[in-house]
Amino acid sequence: MSTATATPGDVKDRSLAEVGKKRIEWAFQWMPVLGSIRKEFQAARPLQGIRISACLHVTTETANLMITLRDGGADAVLCASNPLSTQDDVAASLVEDYGIPTYSIKGEDNDTYYAHIQAALDHKPHITMDDGADLVHQLHTERTELADGVLGGTEETTTGVIRLRAMANDGVLKFPIVAVNDAMTKHFFDNRYGTGQSTIDGILRATNVLLAGLNVVVAGYGWCGRGVASRARGLGASVIVTEVDPTRALEAVMDGFRVMPMSEAAAAGDIIVTVTGDKHVVGKHHFENMKDGAIVANSGHFNVELDLEGLASLAASRRTVREFVEEYTLHNGRKVFVLADGRLVNLSSAEGHPAAVMDMSFANQALAARYLAETHGHLAVGVHSVPEEIDKSVARRKLDSMNVRIDTLSDEQEQYLSSWQEGT
Amino acid sequence: MSTATATPGDVKDRSLAEVGKKRIEWAFQWMPVLGSIRKEFQAARPLQGIRISACLHVTTETANLMITLRDGGADAVLCASNPLSTQDDVAASLVEDYGIPTYSIKGEDNDTYYAHIQAALDHKPHITMDDGADLVHQLHTERTELADGVLGGTEETTTGVIRLRAMANDGVLKFPIVAVNDAMTKHFFDNRYGTGQSTIDGILRATNVLLAGLNVVVAGYGWCGRGVASRARGLGASVIVTEVDPTRALEAVMDGFRVMPMSEAAAAGDIIVTVTGDKHVVGKHHFENMKDGAIVANSGHFNVELDLEGLASLAASRRTVREFVEEYTLHNGRKVFVLADGRLVNLSSAEGHPAAVMDMSFANQALAARYLAETHGHLAVGVHSVPEEIDKSVARRKLDSMNVRIDTLSDEQEQYLSSWQEGT
Amino acid sequence: MSTATATPGDVKDRSLAEVGKKRIEWAFQWMPVLGSIRKEFQAARPLQGIRISACLHVTTETANLMITLRDGGADAVLCASNPLSTQDDVAASLVEDYGIPTYSIKGEDNDTYYAHIQAALDHKPHITMDDGADLVHQLHTERTELADGVLGGTEETTTGVIRLRAMANDGVLKFPIVAVNDAMTKHFFDNRYGTGQSTIDGILRATNVLLAGLNVVVAGYGWCGRGVASRARGLGASVIVTEVDPTRALEAVMDGFRVMPMSEAAAAGDIIVTVTGDKHVVGKHHFENMKDGAIVANSGHFNVELDLEGLASLAASRRTVREFVEEYTLHNGRKVFVLADGRLVNLSSAEGHPAAVMDMSFANQALAARYLAETHGHLAVGVHSVPEEIDKSVARRKLDSMNVRIDTLSDEQEQYLSSWQEGT
Amino acid sequence: MSTATATPGDVKDRSLAEVGKKRIEWAFQWMPVLGSIRKEFQAARPLQGIRISACLHVTTETANLMITLRDGGADAVLCASNPLSTQDDVAASLVEDYGIPTYSIKGEDNDTYYAHIQAALDHKPHITMDDGADLVHQLHTERTELADGVLGGTEETTTGVIRLRAMANDGVLKFPIVAVNDAMTKHFFDNRYGTGQSTIDGILRATNVLLAGLNVVVAGYGWCGRGVASRARGLGASVIVTEVDPTRALEAVMDGFRVMPMSEAAAAGDIIVTVTGDKHVVGKHHFENMKDGAIVANSGHFNVELDLEGLASLAASRRTVREFVEEYTLHNGRKVFVLADGRLVNLSSAEGHPAAVMDMSFANQALAARYLAETHGHLAVGVHSVPEEIDKSVARRKLDSMNVRIDTLSDEQEQYLSSWQEGT
Repeated sequence: MSTATATPGDVKDRSLAEVGKKRIEWAFQWMPVLGSIRKEFQAARPLQGIRISACLHVTTETANLMITLRDGGADAVLCASNPLSTQDDVAASLVEDYGIPTYSIKGEDNDTYYAHIQAALDHKPHITMDDGADLVHQLHTERTELADGVLGGTEETTTGVIRLRAMANDGVLKFPIVAVNDAMTKHFFDNRYGTGQSTIDGILRATNVLLAGLNVVVAGYGWCGRGVASRARGLGASVIVTEVDPTRALEAVMDGFRVMPMSEAAAAGDIIVTVTGDKHVVGKHHFENMKDGAIVANSGHFNVELDLEGLASLAASRRTVREFVEEYTLHNGRKVFVLADGRLVNLSSAEGHPAAVMDMSFANQALAARYLAETHGHLAVGVHSVPEEIDKSVARRKLDSMNVRIDTLSDEQEQYLSSWQEGT
Repeated sequence: MSTATATPGDVKDRSLAEVGKKRIEWAFQWMPVLGSIRKEFQAARPLQGIRISACLHVTTETANLMITLRDGGADAVLCASNPLSTQDDVAASLVEDYGIPTYSIKGEDNDTYYAHIQAALDHKPHITMDDGADLVHQLHTERTELADGVLGGTEETTTGVIRLRAMANDGVLKFPIVAVNDAMTKHFFDNRYGTGQSTIDGILRATNVLLAGLNVVVAGYGWCGRGVASRARGLGASVIVTEVDPTRALEAVMDGFRVMPMSEAAAAGDIIVTVTGDKHVVGKHHFENMKDGAIVANSGHFNVELDLEGLASLAASRRTVREFVEEYTLHNGRKVFVLADGRLVNLSSAEGHPAAVMDMSFANQALAARYLAETHGHLAVGVHSVPEEIDKSVARRKLDSMNVRIDTLSDEQEQYLSSWQEGT
Repeated sequence: MSTATATPGDVKDRSLAEVGKKRIEWAFQWMPVLGSIRKEFQAARPLQGIRISACLHVTTETANLMITLRDGGADAVLCASNPLSTQDDVAASLVEDYGIPTYSIKGEDNDTYYAHIQAALDHKPHITMDDGADLVHQLHTERTELADGVLGGTEETTTGVIRLRAMANDGVLKFPIVAVNDAMTKHFFDNRYGTGQSTIDGILRATNVLLAGLNVVVAGYGWCGRGVASRARGLGASVIVTEVDPTRALEAVMDGFRVMPMSEAAAAGDIIVTVTGDKHVVGKHHFENMKDGAIVANSGHFNVELDLEGLASLAASRRTVREFVEEYTLHNGRKVFVLADGRLVNLSSAEGHPAAVMDMSFANQALAARYLAETHGHLAVGVHSVPEEIDKSVARRKLDSMNVRIDTLSDEQEQYLSSWQEGT
Repeated sequence: MSTATATPGDVKDRSLAEVGKKRIEWAFQWMPVLGSIRKEFQAARPLQGIRISACLHVTTETANLMITLRDGGADAVLCASNPLSTQDDVAASLVEDYGIPTYSIKGEDNDTYYAHIQAALDHKPHITMDDGADLVHQLHTERTELADGVLGGTEETTTGVIRLRAMANDGVLKFPIVAVNDAMTKHFFDNRYGTGQSTIDGILRATNVLLAGLNVVVAGYGWCGRGVASRARGLGASVIVTEVDPTRALEAVMDGFRVMPMSEAAAAGDIIVTVTGDKHVVGKHHFENMKDGAIVANSGHFNVELDLEGLASLAASRRTVREFVEEYTLHNGRKVFVLADGRLVNLSSAEGHPAAVMDMSFANQALAARYLAETHGHLAVGVHSVPEEIDKSVARRKLDSMNVRIDTLSDEQEQYLSSWQEGT
């Protein structure tokens, strides 16, 4: 593909493209929502002439988002939102097979990482896409001259949205942002169903233990925790939940789970998983009281939820006994196994969210991009929720892809509902 | 109890008091949250000198709320919020055994119903308690002179809150209202767990069918629908969900249920239950296509969800075949069984919410009354949510009653959480 | 119906027939398997000229069995297998509306009970039907002259089968018996699905407690225990299992339940149900250590599983607080609630097995009667299992009634299967 | 370890021993039952002087069995029971680190495979251990002179037991065999819990699809099918079961699953898994009617359950799109994905049974070996079940390892039970 080889970019090895392409196509099979949008985009070209700079994890699913944007007419480039998460074959294929400039090498050092963000900004985007707000942050600090040309941006993550809201509150944000993370069809589904399954999957791949009959402790009963607890129970485990919020704790009880403080749960658990968003949820004294052979993993926030320094201070020795499994032998003679160094176990030892989950998330991204293009810059500066019609459209497309049909309100029903709900 | 007999009130038969008392005490066993508040109220008397007029369903659980208010120092009276829901033995016992003036007779006519509300208003309340806003409505239309003396009111139901919000929007509301219904520990628990169980219970008591292996159709996947669907599945049914909202429909799919339009579901269902809040969710053409022997029940909104007139027009004959079970023999030769005349099946053929559910609801009521007393009238006119500390206190007391202990954030964790969530 | 009034029998009140008939017809709706057999019997009259004496619980479901036998040509009479279980309206309707001689009055004394069995034996049966072997026992002791005329009998219960096997082993049994209880489609389904649901139903009707979040202890993890445990979990309870058999205990663990000795479980349980088949499974020391407010019920064997004498010796007082609920106030100040006096809670406070369960059981009875008629007395004396083709036929008819179709083996598949399973 | 290097054997690469040892130790962590037996064996040396030839899959779990036998005093050797399943690092470690002669190289050709069995037979075993009866078969055909010295053998698999029963029936079997497969703690647990989890695990590793909301078809509702169906449901799938047996089909219905013929199920399924034990359960016409993107896997019997030749005849093209995933593009334009070439998906793309499952199986093996040693050859020739006390001992040890305690019958209870069950 002689034209494709002319595509600029900085990837590890362009010869990996063939493998990458197959994997991108496999993922696309499982992204029917994005697929339906892509078809529309190919016909209507709603992003014609729009320059998009995206700073996302360079994975097969992201590749399909980029291709969809390209097919919608956009002139899109991509850089990595994390130095470690790049799939080099995907990056190669994007450049070689799809003509999408990509700047991203797995394991790149800090300087390269920021150089790649700069390369993406050199594209002079009309729209930014972020996963953690690094691109927008760079733009607001190093490349402020670009802000005027930006119609708006999108942000994928909780962390990024928090960061951008802080910028908005401080009055420094210079263009509107659509918080894709806030869409029901994004956070509601990826936390419960995505994290629920992939966390268990990560633990099984790392350890190959039989869950049936084990005590599995899930720290945190937010949407992620519910997902993990429900899946662990579905595989035969007896699940214990720990919480700091009494309402959530009560829900866990009413859902049939045992609830207790971590100090007790740590001693009872065969497997302990944290999904709280807070630090040192499993602390030194918890590690000290664990059963011999306890397995500990984190699927919540970065790698902060386990106090691994505290654990190390209790350990007489440590060694890797299986990929992603580190054995700590404590001075008390017991062994504790920590998975994936306390990093997100679903990303580390499994493959992160299945494509079906990213499908809905990236469908929101694609439709948010079209929405920003259609605003012609008239959207107020600030952080905006995904418009409800986009959110519902994603749900509707997903149902269509599954051949699931639903009811619609008759006029009479519509009227009845509004009459009593509006209190007239 | 010679003094008690002097208690005013209008009840069916004071000699029913003994039976009522036993039943009130049985319910109290299952209301540990209200019990903990009662103990505090007995010591601190936070409602000393406060006159309360309550307009609620006169049941064993309500009796325990009234006793708790009385023990907190309140001078409380009670009238019925519905002419049909009064338990006459409970009304008798409140007057005879607990000295609480009660105006309420099961099956009272419309005039008596309103006379009873007037009797409650004659009490010149500092605080009103409503279940559907009838008391407040009467006060604002017939007894406006009383409004000045009112510190505030509470409201138990969705319907009442909608009505009061409309009054507030129209500028006619004259004092603050605490919307008890909005408390997480109220609507979140009674819809899912209360309605979930009691709906199934009502169907079983009415029919004694074996749920295992049946197709159970649940119309609506709000909190009630989730509860019913989950309980039906828990008893071995294969559950089909119908919805009009794509996001909820998608959740139902992801939760492992089949989703289809009612036109298909009606033909597939062995049992069909509506919990949508809208009218004629099961319409004439649905009844026409049902299986021979289909059972249809409503556990949603009043008796509007089933189009029973439409059904009647299809029927060659009808008769009652079992208490709460009406058999319609259609012209097409098939039989359809309607439970409880399309009225709420959990209230009609079972006993409504278990005491444990009302416990949390009425704990919110009691604490909301104390809160109103403590505001000394400084709360703004309008409809207010239950303060979060009350909501969490109810959850915490419930956990305590179950001997469930939970974690608390360390200072370090509190700080970490706020640091990243606030984006600094 | 002038002829019908000539039908002999001894029932409480023939004027109850109308109510009974409605209820018999309602049950028939839920007995499609028996219905399909009845239709065949009406056409083929396989029992023409056969005299049948049945000694069964006189309920709506039994009535439909009797009607089916009659429609198959049999000359059938019925007496009660238990002095307390007769539904008098059903007995009346059998005599008045269906012309089936019935000898059975609810609450009859011992003499009447045996006189009724004698009346049934006066019928000189070709086939006996028993539920506990009382009829066969009487025949073998008091009416031995009848044995020669008997082609064979059927037996419904575990207890009866055990008794008859003992008779066979002792060489005193004089004709063949088909042990209906041994059919997969009988014990396999009524224990798991029937007892599972009806036990929970009995507890809910007796107490109206909310199961969600409660600790429910199930003693025994046989088929009944599995059923109860699974249903309790399905309603949101956290289930604890007790067992004496290590393999069953291990299964319970692997199924995600907590397993512990009753001494610990009794102290942890909010509700405790016994389904073990053994006596005093909940003993005095267990009652002593229960939580305040614990609810205890039996759904296993007669009324022997709870040591109620032991409990009584611990009690300072006792009283009935709700129908089927007896409150024991112990000297330690705690209250324990015993349901239905320790008798089978599903029969006492609910309605026993749903008709759908009895349908399969009685379908086996009807087909076993035809089988006995077809043997012309050539079946060996002894206790026989239900022939596999009858068992499978019942399953197949049940599937048909639900419109469920299944696969059949191709010749090639049949051959492959037998080739490797037979090791050639 | 200079002595160890003298251990004979034929393995791929002795330098792999270090990796193998770590993995053997990791598995041992999850084999507490075998661990408890090993401890006893180390003390009592019940196999002192006994020569054992084992022909098993050479895996980490088997290694721990061999070590346990060695520690019990046995002089044990090992060869592979399958040319493909050997873990070369484990074989190396057994020879190098544990001094156990091992003859097994992954991918060995047919001649080598049989030569290795001969090498194991050269050991002149007192006890044989088989997984498929190859060793016993060789002994009975090529090495008949050895039969006299054999006390007995054990057999791990269904297939092997069938083969050996056929030999016994034909009168050619020359020594007693203990059918380990028949132990409750073997087949009951590995089919339901082991195959249940590992099949799902295999599908997830191969495809990374999100199960929630998918239609998963499980062909066969034996113990494996139940396990797979229950786990798929536990992960949010809507499960469809196909069966040829009406009783099993009915159970599946009563357990809340949809049941239909494969001709319909194939068209409805997103994922289709076979666990029937029969051939071509998914045939050409089924493949033809599948949805675009359907995933098909086998976890039942060898690779016969899918008619892949039939599928190939429908395909315009095929290619591998992911490890273990072959894409067939049919002439009708739809794609079908076949996992692991139709071989057992849990072994191919996951790691087979977790160690906890093999633990119970191999505990039965070790105790059966001790049992054979203790018979001194007095056990009758033929195929014997594992003695019940061994089976229960394995369950009891497993419970002990989980700190689960259970009840024991009192004398009074023992007596009561036997009295009514024996009909006196």
